[in-house]
Amino acid sequence: MGLCDLCGLCGKRFGFSLAKPPGGKENGVARLRREGLRAERRQAILEAAMKVFAQRGYAAATIRAIAREANIAQGTIYLYFPSKRDILLALYRSMILESLEEIMARPRKGDEAAFLRSVLVDRIRRFRENARAVRFAFTELPFHKELREKFYREIALEQLGRIQTFLREQTARGKFRPLRTEIVARAFQGMYVIFALAEIVYGDGEVARLTPEEIADEVVRLFLHGALKKR
Amino acid sequence: MGLCDLCGLCGKRFGFSLAKPPGGKENGVARLRREGLRAERRQAILEAAMKVFAQRGYAAATIRAIAREANIAQGTIYLYFPSKRDILLALYRSMILESLEEIMARPRKGDEAAFLRSVLVDRIRRFRENARAVRFAFTELPFHKELREKFYREIALEQLGRIQTFLREQTARGKFRPLRTEIVARAFQGMYVIFALAEIVYGDGEVARLTPEEIADEVVRLFLHGALKKR
Repeated sequence: MGLCDLCGLCGKRFGFSLAKPPGGKENGVARLRREGLRAERRQAILEAAMKVFAQRGYAAATIRAIAREANIAQGTIYLYFPSKRDILLALYRSMILESLEEIMARPRKGDEAAFLRSVLVDRIRRFRENARAVRFAFTELPFHKELREKFYREIALEQLGRIQTFLREQTARGKFRPLRTEIVARAFQGMYVIFALAEIVYGDGEVARLTPEEIADEVVRLFLHGALKKR
Repeated sequence: MGLCDLCGLCGKRFGFSLAKPPGGKENGVARLRREGLRAERRQAILEAAMKVFAQRGYAAATIRAIAREANIAQGTIYLYFPSKRDILLALYRSMILESLEEIMARPRKGDEAAFLRSVLVDRIRRFRENARAVRFAFTELPFHKELREKFYREIALEQLGRIQTFLREQTARGKFRPLRTEIVARAFQGMYVIFALAEIVYGDGEVARLTPEEIADEVVRLFLHGALKKR
């Protein structure tokens, strides 16, 4: 049995061979298996890391502790991430940006309300699923200058940029009135971030009882139509 | 020279007598002076406390250190605040609630846009003036369970309640359409809190360059009219 090209251990640990067949080619099934395993392993590292970051704080967290938590050899982690900073940023990137990209890539049926609603529902769901990462972003991340700057520039501002692009597109299509997108995109972000802050950081029970759909419906209505009664 | 009724020290420290005249009555000028001095002293304690909280963290901060920072006798602090928790809550109450009450108490000229604008301008100005307290509310306050709960219930939810009341009044007057105020009031809060988070916690330079008026004008327009182009 050959050695897998990920960690040199998985042939044993997972009970099947991930080796490339002789000649360096692998068949389609083997490739899918390998990719699936890689994604699973990556996810396990991210989850273990968040647990360790939340327990020990970012400064005291070590790759060794993350490896132990994920039940993976320490050296294996480095095959996925060069440093603990990269682990944390990957975690936020996956939570904040990847799903936003998926939603933005879906064919849009010209319905900006449905689009905004799916962005909001997704944001709120992900916040709830990743409560530890959300709390960490408010309470601890700000204290690590370089990390904070990278997080803000590469993830928070990226997210903001996508929203600004959407707003500009809608204005160009004649759907939205001209907006100061650097303000309106942030206000839109604020309209879902506040629910994460209230529920996860401050334990607001009234927010916890609302479904993502209830919040999204009301926020979309407000964002599109405003609070004034139409005459 | 009689003893002042605040601290027993000020006759000496401030170089003029705050004593009540014989007979226990004081004239108007003396009363105003005493009240002004009390307010000034209280403010000095709040500012010193925030400095100490930010430097040492809430748990390690002591009344003794706050007194030293404010250049006031330790015993004097207790004439104003029973505990350090009360100091911190008074600080947020003054920053968040008192000015909101002032704005809400002003005669409203039936113009909800002007009212919302003055709330927003005031919030953003106060955040900037009290950057340390804002950072503390995101990063450290969440870790002190009892304090966090008191802060959230007595200050954050109070603020939310005032906004909900305003929304309901406007709906009753036929100005606003029916709104789920528990969601819309939070969304409104989010639309200014996000600017404090971005600028003060994450150092967002683009936000720092915006004036409170610019932010408020665009957010009010969005809140009242929404983003859709009118047809």
